[in-house]
Amino acid sequence: MFDPIEKLKEHLRFPSVSTDSNFKEGMDGSRRFLESLFADMGLSVEVVNTPMHPIVLARREGNPEWPHVLIYGHYDVQPADPLEEWRSDPFDPVVKDGRLFARGAADNKGPQMAHIAAVAQALEEDPELPLRITFLIEGEEEIGSPSLKPFLESRKDSFSDVDLVLLSDTLSPTEKQIVVTVGLRGIAVLDVQVQGPSADLHSGLHGGAVYNPVQALCEICASLHDENNRVTVDGFYEGVTDVEDWERDELAKLGADEEAYKKTLGVGALHPIEGYTPFEATRYLPTLEFNGIGGGYQGEGSKTIVPSKAMTKISCRLVGNQDPKVIGERVKQAVLDRAPPGVSINVEMGHEGAPYLVTPPGRPNSPADMPGRLVYAFEATTKAIDESFGCSPLFLREGGSIPIIADFKSILGLDSVMIGLFLPEDNLHAPNESMNLDVLNRGIDASKKILFSIAKHG
Amino acid sequence: MFDPIEKLKEHLRFPSVSTDSNFKEGMDGSRRFLESLFADMGLSVEVVNTPMHPIVLARREGNPEWPHVLIYGHYDVQPADPLEEWRSDPFDPVVKDGRLFARGAADNKGPQMAHIAAVAQALEEDPELPLRITFLIEGEEEIGSPSLKPFLESRKDSFSDVDLVLLSDTLSPTEKQIVVTVGLRGIAVLDVQVQGPSADLHSGLHGGAVYNPVQALCEICASLHDENNRVTVDGFYEGVTDVEDWERDELAKLGADEEAYKKTLGVGALHPIEGYTPFEATRYLPTLEFNGIGGGYQGEGSKTIVPSKAMTKISCRLVGNQDPKVIGERVKQAVLDRAPPGVSINVEMGHEGAPYLVTPPGRPNSPADMPGRLVYAFEATTKAIDESFGCSPLFLREGGSIPIIADFKSILGLDSVMIGLFLPEDNLHAPNESMNLDVLNRGIDASKKILFSIAKHG
Repeated sequence: MFDPIEKLKEHLRFPSVSTDSNFKEGMDGSRRFLESLFADMGLSVEVVNTPMHPIVLARREGNPEWPHVLIYGHYDVQPADPLEEWRSDPFDPVVKDGRLFARGAADNKGPQMAHIAAVAQALEEDPELPLRITFLIEGEEEIGSPSLKPFLESRKDSFSDVDLVLLSDTLSPTEKQIVVTVGLRGIAVLDVQVQGPSADLHSGLHGGAVYNPVQALCEICASLHDENNRVTVDGFYEGVTDVEDWERDELAKLGADEEAYKKTLGVGALHPIEGYTPFEATRYLPTLEFNGIGGGYQGEGSKTIVPSKAMTKISCRLVGNQDPKVIGERVKQAVLDRAPPGVSINVEMGHEGAPYLVTPPGRPNSPADMPGRLVYAFEATTKAIDESFGCSPLFLREGGSIPIIADFKSILGLDSVMIGLFLPEDNLHAPNESMNLDVLNRGIDASKKILFSIAKHG
Repeated sequence: MFDPIEKLKEHLRFPSVSTDSNFKEGMDGSRRFLESLFADMGLSVEVVNTPMHPIVLARREGNPEWPHVLIYGHYDVQPADPLEEWRSDPFDPVVKDGRLFARGAADNKGPQMAHIAAVAQALEEDPELPLRITFLIEGEEEIGSPSLKPFLESRKDSFSDVDLVLLSDTLSPTEKQIVVTVGLRGIAVLDVQVQGPSADLHSGLHGGAVYNPVQALCEICASLHDENNRVTVDGFYEGVTDVEDWERDELAKLGADEEAYKKTLGVGALHPIEGYTPFEATRYLPTLEFNGIGGGYQGEGSKTIVPSKAMTKISCRLVGNQDPKVIGERVKQAVLDRAPPGVSINVEMGHEGAPYLVTPPGRPNSPADMPGRLVYAFEATTKAIDESFGCSPLFLREGGSIPIIADFKSILGLDSVMIGLFLPEDNLHAPNESMNLDVLNRGIDASKKILFSIAKHG
């Protein structure tokens, strides 16, 4: 009998941080764990090498007439730092108060395990289940999936008979209100380096003679938003699309509460763009965020220098038809254009991904040509969530980015059914990440129901 | 025979970083080194404990009619980081091309050794030298000498018969143009902490809803200077005094060359306040510098978060009659006042020191009541530098801060003769700090001449 919690704990012990080359061993361990897991389930496993981290493919083949579901997930995780803020070792999973604490518990090893366990249990219950399944688990999601797009392009034909993508790498607001995500923001990432004097200078002897690179960087960064928090880069909002009425209605049903949200985030005030609620702003609008900044002396006490260098990391979230390459380049150019004399600036573009949007069946703007098996999958999902969680799912856009979802659409022509299995309190990308085990168990149940329904519908 | 270079190397091996409590052992070692050194020279040594790092006093007593010179220095050094930019171990001194490389070589262990060696050699040459000498070597100069002021206040009487202070902790522009420093900037140091959300947030799920604390910090920092690089804090320039004509004439004799200065600093353009040359701006005007900034993710690759915190370290250099407490508080208040809603800011005041200014004899504004032994010391210094270095010294203000010099004046009523023994290329407070050994040897010679002259003059 497949034990999802034990398997998940085993998986979480591998520190599979894709962005940091010091974690190669953790990446290898996580990949090998998945290989064994899928092999034990009787699936045929293929490991596809890429320039960075391999992709794990696991297939249940069958009658070509059977429906074919592609289940997506990622085995890489965010860095665990700041380590000192964790209450337990991020790579030694601990269960407490019905939650499993570890880096990757919610993003994405836990939710991914819901579908793996669902398949394992479904095949135990009905070894003849008339359903083809392909798991595609990548190791580069947290760094923008650079290898997956070329992989999909080169293997396009092998995915031509897939009907839909199923995954859980999105948010639900509470365990009692599951969300099916129908839109994701795109992303463009930039790394900004500012060089001032060739070495740190004594701030007494030279202070007042040169442009301090920290000052230059602050002035550039401060210029990127206006007083209403709108981004001031020319053309930054190009490609932003309108929001449908049914979307606003659906979002209103969420009953999101600004006071509760402030409390969850631990802030005294929220700060959306003027004219939008924070719940709209995070879903319908692009952003330009500083993910980090550094330069000069940050240690104990003081060091009276004019620093030689400063840096910042920027990520932009994009929506609608925004092109991450175009918007990213505009931000880069704005940063370069705003450099004062006496400092030199270098901007490196990082990973990027397009925004994604699908309209589920039954809406005024639903596409007439949606394939029957996808229409049925959305309906089966609605029913399964109703039964397993005791609630009707809401169909909402989300602020996060899963660039590969746009790639599935643009390269394979496939839409995705995204079931939110992590919650706001799960601390994604932050210290003390955890997964609610009740949500995990209900998620397994719902996923199993969806797979049985799709198989039965044929 | 006293070997200054070997003794200096020995001293430089102690990593006496006063600002970082991890370096306690290096501080203890450096202090004990000085104790033995002075004892071996036949001086009576007293170690005065303070709440932080002890003060080393070493006295050559004698006839109360003899002149009494107080020689000041400090045995603490700046932190050595960024370590990766050093070409040799900062605490394993290496001689190369006539220079001795190590943290503290120029600030202040090398120049301090010039006076120690001068005294050692002078007493070897003339054990009956009619001169009283007190060495006062502290361990907190790099953190603003918090213990020295209370020490001077409590021991005021024991310094009542001192005639003048002699020290070398200031800059000369080249080995061929020695400068006697007659003014120092004061300093006020601030530590700014910005707190946004209680934990790092996923920049997709929450980006657009909250004020990013890095953005808030950049906006505050960027607001502190206007487009002409003037500080925008209300009352920041209060207490700045006029510059005398002879000072401008003396500075002009320096023949400072902006092109050469740009090259030395490795910048494409200089950035003084409008209306001043960089050489004037660093001497005559106050500054507000960012010594460091930090927040969020600064590692390899990317981490798409809204950071929870950000920080910056600020130091202000002050001139004329500016009060560091008053100006520091104004900067603190400006930072607090400019905090946007949704972040909270904490500003801690660090060390501080008043500016200092003395007019040497023979100038239009020289004080009529300057004590004879001080007048003579300035004259002896001029002559000694002429003979040892082959140049007439220039009497200039300098941009650096030695808060204790203002304290000697305000508490003990003593002026200081400050002979510049480090050079711009010595990389003070920076990686690959070094001391020019020819300057060191000429400095020993000059100091010995000055001591003999003062003794002879009586």
